[in-house]
Amino acid sequence: MQDNDYTQPALFIDGEWVTQTSRYGEVLNPATDEVLAKFPIADEEQIERALASSEAAFEQWRKTSYDERIEIMHRAAAILRENAEHTARCMTMEHGKPLADSKGEVENCACLLEWCSTAAADHVDRTLPELKGFVDRTVRKEPIGPVAAFPAWNFPASLATRKMASAIAVGCSVIVKPAKETPVSFMAVVDALDKAGLPKGVVNILMGDSSLISKKLIESPVIKKISFTGSTPVGQKLAALAGDQAKPCVMELGGHAPVLVFDDAKLDKAIDLSVTTKSRNSGQVCISPTRFFVQEAVYDKFLTGFTEKFAALRIGNGLDNDTQMGPLANPRRIAEIDDLVQDAVSKGARLMTGGKRLDRPGNFYEATVLADVPATARIMQEEPFGPIAIINKFSSYDEAIEKANNTDFALASYAFSGSQETIDKLGSDLDSGKVGINGYPVVFLDSPLGGRRQSGYGSEGGYEGLDAYRIVKFVSQSAI
Amino acid sequence: MQDNDYTQPALFIDGEWVTQTSRYGEVLNPATDEVLAKFPIADEEQIERALASSEAAFEQWRKTSYDERIEIMHRAAAILRENAEHTARCMTMEHGKPLADSKGEVENCACLLEWCSTAAADHVDRTLPELKGFVDRTVRKEPIGPVAAFPAWNFPASLATRKMASAIAVGCSVIVKPAKETPVSFMAVVDALDKAGLPKGVVNILMGDSSLISKKLIESPVIKKISFTGSTPVGQKLAALAGDQAKPCVMELGGHAPVLVFDDAKLDKAIDLSVTTKSRNSGQVCISPTRFFVQEAVYDKFLTGFTEKFAALRIGNGLDNDTQMGPLANPRRIAEIDDLVQDAVSKGARLMTGGKRLDRPGNFYEATVLADVPATARIMQEEPFGPIAIINKFSSYDEAIEKANNTDFALASYAFSGSQETIDKLGSDLDSGKVGINGYPVVFLDSPLGGRRQSGYGSEGGYEGLDAYRIVKFVSQSAI
Amino acid sequence: MQDNDYTQPALFIDGEWVTQTSRYGEVLNPATDEVLAKFPIADEEQIERALASSEAAFEQWRKTSYDERIEIMHRAAAILRENAEHTARCMTMEHGKPLADSKGEVENCACLLEWCSTAAADHVDRTLPELKGFVDRTVRKEPIGPVAAFPAWNFPASLATRKMASAIAVGCSVIVKPAKETPVSFMAVVDALDKAGLPKGVVNILMGDSSLISKKLIESPVIKKISFTGSTPVGQKLAALAGDQAKPCVMELGGHAPVLVFDDAKLDKAIDLSVTTKSRNSGQVCISPTRFFVQEAVYDKFLTGFTEKFAALRIGNGLDNDTQMGPLANPRRIAEIDDLVQDAVSKGARLMTGGKRLDRPGNFYEATVLADVPATARIMQEEPFGPIAIINKFSSYDEAIEKANNTDFALASYAFSGSQETIDKLGSDLDSGKVGINGYPVVFLDSPLGGRRQSGYGSEGGYEGLDAYRIVKFVSQSAI
Amino acid sequence: MQDNDYTQPALFIDGEWVTQTSRYGEVLNPATDEVLAKFPIADEEQIERALASSEAAFEQWRKTSYDERIEIMHRAAAILRENAEHTARCMTMEHGKPLADSKGEVENCACLLEWCSTAAADHVDRTLPELKGFVDRTVRKEPIGPVAAFPAWNFPASLATRKMASAIAVGCSVIVKPAKETPVSFMAVVDALDKAGLPKGVVNILMGDSSLISKKLIESPVIKKISFTGSTPVGQKLAALAGDQAKPCVMELGGHAPVLVFDDAKLDKAIDLSVTTKSRNSGQVCISPTRFFVQEAVYDKFLTGFTEKFAALRIGNGLDNDTQMGPLANPRRIAEIDDLVQDAVSKGARLMTGGKRLDRPGNFYEATVLADVPATARIMQEEPFGPIAIINKFSSYDEAIEKANNTDFALASYAFSGSQETIDKLGSDLDSGKVGINGYPVVFLDSPLGGRRQSGYGSEGGYEGLDAYRIVKFVSQSAI
Repeated sequence: MQDNDYTQPALFIDGEWVTQTSRYGEVLNPATDEVLAKFPIADEEQIERALASSEAAFEQWRKTSYDERIEIMHRAAAILRENAEHTARCMTMEHGKPLADSKGEVENCACLLEWCSTAAADHVDRTLPELKGFVDRTVRKEPIGPVAAFPAWNFPASLATRKMASAIAVGCSVIVKPAKETPVSFMAVVDALDKAGLPKGVVNILMGDSSLISKKLIESPVIKKISFTGSTPVGQKLAALAGDQAKPCVMELGGHAPVLVFDDAKLDKAIDLSVTTKSRNSGQVCISPTRFFVQEAVYDKFLTGFTEKFAALRIGNGLDNDTQMGPLANPRRIAEIDDLVQDAVSKGARLMTGGKRLDRPGNFYEATVLADVPATARIMQEEPFGPIAIINKFSSYDEAIEKANNTDFALASYAFSGSQETIDKLGSDLDSGKVGINGYPVVFLDSPLGGRRQSGYGSEGGYEGLDAYRIVKFVSQSAI
Repeated sequence: MQDNDYTQPALFIDGEWVTQTSRYGEVLNPATDEVLAKFPIADEEQIERALASSEAAFEQWRKTSYDERIEIMHRAAAILRENAEHTARCMTMEHGKPLADSKGEVENCACLLEWCSTAAADHVDRTLPELKGFVDRTVRKEPIGPVAAFPAWNFPASLATRKMASAIAVGCSVIVKPAKETPVSFMAVVDALDKAGLPKGVVNILMGDSSLISKKLIESPVIKKISFTGSTPVGQKLAALAGDQAKPCVMELGGHAPVLVFDDAKLDKAIDLSVTTKSRNSGQVCISPTRFFVQEAVYDKFLTGFTEKFAALRIGNGLDNDTQMGPLANPRRIAEIDDLVQDAVSKGARLMTGGKRLDRPGNFYEATVLADVPATARIMQEEPFGPIAIINKFSSYDEAIEKANNTDFALASYAFSGSQETIDKLGSDLDSGKVGINGYPVVFLDSPLGGRRQSGYGSEGGYEGLDAYRIVKFVSQSAI
Repeated sequence: MQDNDYTQPALFIDGEWVTQTSRYGEVLNPATDEVLAKFPIADEEQIERALASSEAAFEQWRKTSYDERIEIMHRAAAILRENAEHTARCMTMEHGKPLADSKGEVENCACLLEWCSTAAADHVDRTLPELKGFVDRTVRKEPIGPVAAFPAWNFPASLATRKMASAIAVGCSVIVKPAKETPVSFMAVVDALDKAGLPKGVVNILMGDSSLISKKLIESPVIKKISFTGSTPVGQKLAALAGDQAKPCVMELGGHAPVLVFDDAKLDKAIDLSVTTKSRNSGQVCISPTRFFVQEAVYDKFLTGFTEKFAALRIGNGLDNDTQMGPLANPRRIAEIDDLVQDAVSKGARLMTGGKRLDRPGNFYEATVLADVPATARIMQEEPFGPIAIINKFSSYDEAIEKANNTDFALASYAFSGSQETIDKLGSDLDSGKVGINGYPVVFLDSPLGGRRQSGYGSEGGYEGLDAYRIVKFVSQSAI
Repeated sequence: MQDNDYTQPALFIDGEWVTQTSRYGEVLNPATDEVLAKFPIADEEQIERALASSEAAFEQWRKTSYDERIEIMHRAAAILRENAEHTARCMTMEHGKPLADSKGEVENCACLLEWCSTAAADHVDRTLPELKGFVDRTVRKEPIGPVAAFPAWNFPASLATRKMASAIAVGCSVIVKPAKETPVSFMAVVDALDKAGLPKGVVNILMGDSSLISKKLIESPVIKKISFTGSTPVGQKLAALAGDQAKPCVMELGGHAPVLVFDDAKLDKAIDLSVTTKSRNSGQVCISPTRFFVQEAVYDKFLTGFTEKFAALRIGNGLDNDTQMGPLANPRRIAEIDDLVQDAVSKGARLMTGGKRLDRPGNFYEATVLADVPATARIMQEEPFGPIAIINKFSSYDEAIEKANNTDFALASYAFSGSQETIDKLGSDLDSGKVGINGYPVVFLDSPLGGRRQSGYGSEGGYEGLDAYRIVKFVSQSAI
């Protein structure tokens, strides 16, 4: 691998790739600590240009037909697939995830471009029932206007693409600020759209000083909606800024997903799926399963089985073919999760495997299992965004539900059971935005993703995610 | 009329009417300047009790069946109708509107109780299409939790009822803080619910210090959603507080509705409907028509006709049978609109009729028509919440649209035309949350109400308004 | 009880009750064999008048607003409930069912009037997605026109009411021909509508010569839709007549419902529900459970439990308070089911209880259980419309499904199981129009009822049942 | 052009093309009277084999996933497009229509394969609202079973494809009997499906003796639904056969579409669109505009303009590049329309242009305009399936509606007007299955096509057309 493989980071303003600016930051490879490239830090004038571009583009783009949008976005998907290999390599370099996962993420971006554009065109306005004296009463939905999108670094291409594709599919323009750790992955998607004929200004990319960019965008009268994925504290800050401008937001914040394993579950399947899902993206997923609660009768078997398979995962550079789990995204993550692990152990948790960083360059941490973790351990309330599994015991259904719901986060929950009665109750009792039963897949092109409580509000994905970029207009026409 | 007609204002906390507190405020009759009563200013402990009550009630109420909610809310509607006469008199006393309008508002509250409870029960979760490997994939909607509702004084019963009825119909509990000018009208609705068997704590009423109450409620972890109707500056303040807590809001803020009268409209009908609608609630309606733009060929005729009929309205105490328009809600309003009128005249507007307060006790202002108002007049951008009509001229369709959309407000717009082509374009080109064509009715039980830009975001009313108090849960069940 | 309790049967033509005609038939009490009354046999001229009345009424009725229809039909429901006692007594006299069941049926008719009128008003036309060059593309639904309805005698009021209420709720007029065994029960419903203000001609009632009436109605250009409930051979005859006129039908024909009881079911509950449901209407229900297939491990227990409870039912005159099961509707039924029972026994079935008519006046037959009935017995293929339960054994899931689906009828199926996997498969594998799992209720106001194969086609009930009386109009408006 | 261009007609039975049989018929080129080929007349054994094949295939096909069906049908669309040139030539040879129209029809078939398969997968079952005591209440839709499809000869590929694609998209198997005049066009579609991997037996093609085939198919217990497009008398015969078997039908029968031209219409546009649409397929379209009613003030202008342009159309062999209108399908058509024209003239109609067959081989008839045709002329009630336009005058709106609705046919209607009020009323008052306003396009992939009265019943096309091949199953699961 050579550095020159890696795409040169650039802003995208009014249809032009811009690398020239006054200040620059560095992109590091989390698997090697090497500097991959320098990225431009957008200055105020560049931010203003992006806003002006977004405003002008919206006026045209909202009037294009759905057919035209479908054509451009499907063509972009094809271009993206053609270049998938290179894009995936860049993603692994800047983020660390195994190459196969990077390729999967690129493919997911292509699917998002296709699905969003097609699904947006399916929209039909809601007509109200016939009423004497009225010719027509219709609840229309129109694009809300230019959007500011702040995705996170853990899925550097797809999080940005989901926001962007949803917004442009319904006729909005959008300014995206990718995370500074991973500036390049999303550029490939925008490049494909550009080559596919997307009018200039419909999508702009800014990089650099997060506080400055978010403040300037949110306070600008041009921006009509804010979409953020990231930590709860940062989300709250942006939401307050937005509130101050009477602007609506979608907030996708943290998670701390419980998994309930009942003694009538298919245990082997539960173990296998749990190991695979927990290791994904090195556990840096907001819906990653983190708190496993296993019913007494099968607790030991689950704990042993999970620990054995989780400990056996091959950790390494994502570019190596046999790597099953890559590094964490940055050194900060290593420090934070190690703190959580040490705190838990000090309070009585059993460390079954892992528990320390790997002695090599890059941000590598061992696959870690903590058992019998006391409620007082910080990790029971703080999101362990890394390869840490907590495995505790429960006796009754009610106890399981109480433990599952007992954090401020409420993004995803999972459960395994073979019983009809248990399954019926779980769907109601698990208090979170997503519930996976007898399996972990809870994100589909056509399903909404959104949290509760400190996990945020509003939905991304599915028809709900398209509607997040639409605004209601009620038209009532009286008979003459 | 005697003061003792007027209901004693009281807080409603955990199922008890509370008049005892440490501080009190005064309620004035805007038609006479007389003090009607003293209302209790809720102290911190009372606010905390309301929160605790709301939290506890939610856990029970969300589990009641739709059938039970329908029964209670329909029974309350019947009780409310039985007491409509007294409730309407109190409303006119504290707000000023003609008695017939007060009665209409009480009836509307009864309808809201019925419609919301029935419509909520119609809800069906969205199932995703069949997918291999999955038994069920469903987008459920659940009640979001305890709600804090801040209605405005202009419709003292129905604004609060719409928020409250929507929230409780879907299973939420709610704490309502009525406006201090009009504390009593909404009490009748809650009293009816109480008598109909609503469990204690499902609805609480707080009165008093707006800043304290809003801050305490919004910052409490109990509250999961905020719904506000009022001015843009206050709305922004609350939205920022909510953002800081990562909590979603519905914001119904100001308006400044344009009316386009094309030369192919039925002019007499347009004039009659405009006069009636403009005079409603003395113009203190967020969707009141304020900026009339009339096409050249019919401009003079419209101006003359409207002015003549508007000037002829009988203004007086709402309790008098022949009153067509009552006083404004408070002295502050008189000062504000008089400023706007004087400013407009000083900048060249023609004062066709009205333009000053009535020389009598109470907050009475003349029905006022300003013609040819220059764009520089403040009234072209600031909401004239009172009986003021601005009547200007336009030539072309494009000019009309440009003028109509040229404020920061975007709540309602209206237009009159007989032409098929014009009407088709108007629905798209008028940029506001509501558009009325050839008539003013744009609020129905089953239609959503919501603004754009500085007029707020989120929807009240209709199925959208019910969904404002629901939160999405996506349940994905894999095949075993 | 005296004969004069019983309402005098009458035709209802163009808003007038008509008893005068050239020929009459007799109504018998199936519990006593007594003649209750004479009913008029409509002559050709009366049939023609009903047609003319229906045609004229349709032109007006289709233009009434939904609000007006709701008002009339809800008022009629209230009137019907006021007279429920008398109506129910007449029903028991002419049909035999226990008085409590007759009352339940009258209440069901009131609910149908309410639900159909309200649900019809909910209808919203389907708008097609936005398309360049088109102003509007909408799939409207309009009332299809005058309907001819032929209900059966087993639910003498509700079967007719479901057809009639669905038809008139959407704006059709309808001519109903009640069964000759039970001419009076439905008259109460029409009388209530008449008193509630239903315009004359919207509903007409004809009685008498089934062949003549059906032929005249179906061949008349006035009639646009035929709805029939009854036996398969008669249904086929009417459907052929209708086809000859290019007219659409709804055909609700016979059934022969299987019940699968798996060994993981809650057995006591399954037995109790089965006995109650089997005895309902003396088994004269098209969705009555008739062929029980019980898994080996629980077969004996189910057979013993069911037989014991079924044999213990109190059979008698429906007017007696402690009667649990009444007589069959007519002597023909006794002969037919006795034949089927004798045939089964002769081919090797075990007669567990019952098996012969009661030695008293009236058409009474014992509650009968046949076990281990061979496939060659006629009763395995012919519908035993009476109090006969067949209880056979099965081993595997696949065998159970094969046996359940193995008749030409496909109206309803039932199954009891506690297993998640089994339940998931049952919904797909049971081949019938209705499937009840872990319970027998499969008919609701808002659910459709319809069969497959020799059980007919088209749906009654629910939104599907309303749509059965609507016809599609696609309106496509091009941009000018 | 040489005969060997033309595909050899063949049956398609259980995945095999079959030309061997005991009897043959001839296919003629309607532009030249030449024999194109001999087609096999299916014998009884072949019909039985097709039925057995269809039955077996259904059991497998209904269980394939939507994804698999989408894949096959989209692949077939691509193959069909590759061979479009040859297929279109064969279509023009056997049917006569201009080559460009044949190509358009082939492309339409490809779109139908794509749309139906994708739209079918969008289907979501209707869930009933939450009810205490029930876990789930769902209205499922399942494929109805093997279908017998009888398309007409006027769109030899697309009529058959619409039926077939709708049926197989939802999981049915289907036996198609193309018209004997045009046996080959549809073969290309089935060949593409076969090459794309459609399992054998999902589609079978029979040709030959219409009476025998329809009788055998409809009477077979295998067939569960009948879909017919053709004349009213034949449709009635098949519907009666089907009724006799208690089987449901879709019947697309004749039409006689009126066109109302109001004096506020854009006249030039109305004339141009009318000429183009009338000439399409030589007028052999069931929704072809036939009876033009023009308002007095613009009558002369419309009549002159239409006649001039209609008379100027180039008539000839569809394979010639500059042909605008081809021959009629068979000599029978020439005789029938000539009779209608002579009858009209004899009763006083003015023959403006045309009125006789062309003096050349092939079934050519002149573009014909009849004006002021009296109501007594047979052509006012009988469908003139050919290039004949009737142009009459009207005064008032009510007269126009009365004349438009005054036939037994009710398939399509059209109107041109610029007035908002008129347009609003037209949508309700024109009594037909389709209404086109200010334009003729009334058939879209996603819109339903169906008639009223003697024009048939049931819908083809759109979601309604897919549902025509589905059957309802209501599943009600009680709580354990």
